[in-house]
Amino acid sequence: MDGMENIAELAKSVMNADRRALSQAITLIESSRDDHRIQAMELMDHLRSSDRKAIRVGLSGTPGVGKSTFIESFGTYLTGMGLRVAVLAVDPSSIRSGGSILGDKTRMERLAREPNAYIRPSPSQTHLGGVARRSREAVAICEAAGFDIIFIETVGVGQSETIVSEISDIFLLLIAPAGGDELQGVKRGIMEIADLILVNKADGDLKAAASRTCSDYSSSLMLLRKRVHDPTGFPLAMAISALEEDGLGDVWDKIEELLDWRKAEGWFDNNRTAQSRFWFKEEIRQGLLSMLDDEKVKEEMSALMNMVDNGEIYSSAAAQKILKKYTAKPR
Amino acid sequence: MDGMENIAELAKSVMNADRRALSQAITLIESSRDDHRIQAMELMDHLRSSDRKAIRVGLSGTPGVGKSTFIESFGTYLTGMGLRVAVLAVDPSSIRSGGSILGDKTRMERLAREPNAYIRPSPSQTHLGGVARRSREAVAICEAAGFDIIFIETVGVGQSETIVSEISDIFLLLIAPAGGDELQGVKRGIMEIADLILVNKADGDLKAAASRTCSDYSSSLMLLRKRVHDPTGFPLAMAISALEEDGLGDVWDKIEELLDWRKAEGWFDNNRTAQSRFWFKEEIRQGLLSMLDDEKVKEEMSALMNMVDNGEIYSSAAAQKILKKYTAKPR
Repeated sequence: MDGMENIAELAKSVMNADRRALSQAITLIESSRDDHRIQAMELMDHLRSSDRKAIRVGLSGTPGVGKSTFIESFGTYLTGMGLRVAVLAVDPSSIRSGGSILGDKTRMERLAREPNAYIRPSPSQTHLGGVARRSREAVAICEAAGFDIIFIETVGVGQSETIVSEISDIFLLLIAPAGGDELQGVKRGIMEIADLILVNKADGDLKAAASRTCSDYSSSLMLLRKRVHDPTGFPLAMAISALEEDGLGDVWDKIEELLDWRKAEGWFDNNRTAQSRFWFKEEIRQGLLSMLDDEKVKEEMSALMNMVDNGEIYSSAAAQKILKKYTAKPR
Repeated sequence: MDGMENIAELAKSVMNADRRALSQAITLIESSRDDHRIQAMELMDHLRSSDRKAIRVGLSGTPGVGKSTFIESFGTYLTGMGLRVAVLAVDPSSIRSGGSILGDKTRMERLAREPNAYIRPSPSQTHLGGVARRSREAVAICEAAGFDIIFIETVGVGQSETIVSEISDIFLLLIAPAGGDELQGVKRGIMEIADLILVNKADGDLKAAASRTCSDYSSSLMLLRKRVHDPTGFPLAMAISALEEDGLGDVWDKIEELLDWRKAEGWFDNNRTAQSRFWFKEEIRQGLLSMLDDEKVKEEMSALMNMVDNGEIYSSAAAQKILKKYTAKPR
């Protein structure tokens, strides 16, 4: 932690919504260096006391559907109401390859200029399994910094959507107007986690198509089994235009309607509790398996493997050697 | 280990092909008691020195296809040639539920009476993840006891076939005569691991159908990509009648032809090495994850989970507490 004397101070600055501290904090939690991890845990422990709760809005959609335009328009709409908005990204390409396709800070120029908005580019690299932890910690940091709404954006490809939905209070799926046949293209899995389906680009030439697509989705949403954590009428599909800023007020109304109901019925807190438990267990699981990726362990495994090959040791006995060395038997 | 003074003695008796010792040894490795596991590892270490190699024949097929009849007929054919035959079962139901559907000792009465045959009923229960380890150890015990052929039988349902194929030198798929349309019923995955496809029940009314089914499979096997560890002509389909003991000699000829080639070309040993390595790594992976099923660990996780729920600790920090306590950092 260069340039920041102590973590308690950093935490305090974050809670005072100091933007530089905010960025420093997120940079810290993005690091996988051992000493940084220890500091990061200390930081998270300090921030826990803030007890602030933002609305965490997950957002997914295929490339070209207008996610950036939507966040820019909708975010500006929200800051216009005096709300503080943070934008984070979960980049699925970083899960696999270490490359980044999202998070270009310049892509939301108008929103980025808003004093009440904070846009965090997605980190350019990370190690496998760390994406979820890093994203959750970044959300918690923004929450402690007093943001009212936190967008967690991802491109729609399987694993990253699951991560985002397990971090969010509400999940928005952005789609483009399309012919009826293309409706099947949206996987059932994503339909089942979406709370609002926003058919974007309901403007100009595409307005009629957007309206039809919206009706198609409305019909198929009605065929889904009723979810216990939804009030009547949800999940729902709406046609909007991020470009012409049309329908943004309705989106906000629906988000509030859904979350107010969930809060009143206890589902909001229930969901957060379930999410914490999920990630707690998942982090232990990942932590256990990360042993297999450790260079030192790999070296020892390779040496034992040679002994197995030469018939000097039975493979189970060799496996037990590793397990005995690196795990403690619960007692 | 009741009634057996020491493990070295048990190992010696096994290597002398003492049937009682053989059964005792397999009972020992089937136990999941901690002290038995330690003895089992000791036993396996002793048996390693035998350096004997059986032919390990994996066998799969849906219920009713005639697996028991085939093993009975083929096993008796082999013992008739003076070969020693062991029969083990990997029971997929035990993987999930703890129940047993295979391994009824009485179902192969004729083979069971052969002095050179040993049929081991599948254990009635086991814990998840232990099936593969137990099966591998049972195979190694039979091998050390000097059996020439070890059949490892399973009902064809996904996971158990993978386990069996990763234990075997050669994999036989038994199927019933059927109309051409049903050919697609055999999953591509199983076609790809099969070395010989045996169309059983080529007798009486079904003889013509068996012959047609065999041709259909032969054609579709030719469409599979050539496998580097196969000589020309493999994998292949054959029509046989286990009931009328028709074609058994051909099956044995083909098994010998394939394995002789693989031995000469190095693939036989290569495969065994790859299998040892696979199970070595898999056992470590399972061992790491078994932590999550330990009652003591579950209790501590539950206590920490409550603290997470009450906001007394951040979920990552809680996860790290478990990891720190039960794993040793490699250095």
